[in-house]
Amino acid sequence: MTYCLGIILESGLLLASDSRSNAGVDQINLVRKLDIFDQAPDRTIAVLSAGNLATTQAVVAMVRQGIRGATKKRDVYQAPTMFAVTQMVGGFLREVIGRDSEHVKAYGDASASFLVAGQIRGERHRLFEIYAAGNFIEASERAPFQQIGETKYGKPILDRALKSNTSLDVSALLALISFDATIRSNLSVEAPIDMLRYEADSFSAGNVVTFERDDPYWSELRARYSDGLMALIATLPVPPRAG
Amino acid sequence: MTYCLGIILESGLLLASDSRSNAGVDQINLVRKLDIFDQAPDRTIAVLSAGNLATTQAVVAMVRQGIRGATKKRDVYQAPTMFAVTQMVGGFLREVIGRDSEHVKAYGDASASFLVAGQIRGERHRLFEIYAAGNFIEASERAPFQQIGETKYGKPILDRALKSNTSLDVSALLALISFDATIRSNLSVEAPIDMLRYEADSFSAGNVVTFERDDPYWSELRARYSDGLMALIATLPVPPRAG
Repeated sequence: MTYCLGIILESGLLLASDSRSNAGVDQINLVRKLDIFDQAPDRTIAVLSAGNLATTQAVVAMVRQGIRGATKKRDVYQAPTMFAVTQMVGGFLREVIGRDSEHVKAYGDASASFLVAGQIRGERHRLFEIYAAGNFIEASERAPFQQIGETKYGKPILDRALKSNTSLDVSALLALISFDATIRSNLSVEAPIDMLRYEADSFSAGNVVTFERDDPYWSELRARYSDGLMALIATLPVPPRAG
Repeated sequence: MTYCLGIILESGLLLASDSRSNAGVDQINLVRKLDIFDQAPDRTIAVLSAGNLATTQAVVAMVRQGIRGATKKRDVYQAPTMFAVTQMVGGFLREVIGRDSEHVKAYGDASASFLVAGQIRGERHRLFEIYAAGNFIEASERAPFQQIGETKYGKPILDRALKSNTSLDVSALLALISFDATIRSNLSVEAPIDMLRYEADSFSAGNVVTFERDDPYWSELRARYSDGLMALIATLPVPPRAG
């Protein structure tokens, strides 16, 4: 499994992914699931991947090949909008699935899903989730985050605490709590966590931080959050008994 | 969907279930998923149900019929241990599945799962989870809770805060936070919540409380927990930026 999280805020985008890739419990690798395309001054694009690793690597490779190629329809640097970029990536996914899924079926599931996020000059920053079918939905103020992979354990803290006017830095903190909840409950999600904080209109993907499992900041955050939660629970009234 | 939770503590058992039954989004009912059998002085038995409603009702009906019947092998009041009670309920499930699943297949999934918990004099209190296959596992000190149905959203708070020496009342509080997290994230789980607090060696199931969605205690708990969590987050350091 995998856990990738995208958050769209008034002030920018927060994108984070874990690094665990596994087939069963004994074929385990660390892979990077956050790919950034920022070699043009008018745009910053990030792609986060979940699902079959052969499929996701093929799709990301096609994005890279498209950039070097001459066909405008396959080059994310020539796409006019983030909608068009997402449609392109969804199209690549359909090509890979069309080619591979029949062959893979006997051994497992070839499907994959993606988050595509970023900004192209002339538009505001945007966040999309591509389903396994290659179609996609856009995040909005009312639903400011999207998740792919192992999504459930990490959702309650975001449902409770995240709003679209939350700051980028606080959303980064909430994202790490969300990843911690997921890692505690599910063996198939694991550090390091790659995290991009993109400031709206900056057209810079410079703020990428990788948090290892024993990162001093993250360790302190985990301890303080757990202690604070236990202290909070101790202040709450217990439920009434019958009669 | 459904969410049922069983917690085994040094001091007793905490059992809770939601009340939503649905087929799709427009055929929605409220049902009771916590059945208690305590008409004998030497035992208290609770059965919590998740899955296909026809299957779970049939299994619980068979438990009731077994009690009235003459066959020791089908009467939970004559079973020597909680292990034997659970084996009996698992056997009833296999009978129902054997009879119904082929007919149901064209329309959906006949499967179901159960938590069986309680105490029979001569044994300590015990908690079991019956899988759809009718086999089952027992909870232990190291894994003091079991969940069936929509289990993931409500798991992180239990993983963080619950220990086998937690008190019954505090575990009741944690259970309500766990249900609240699940209800916020999933439409198919809904109040009222039925909750039994069973004190070890009491052989009494008198302490059953039903929490409606607008229950004053639960409303206050939700508000205080959310406020406390936001206040805690405001005290935590934000993650370092790159460079």
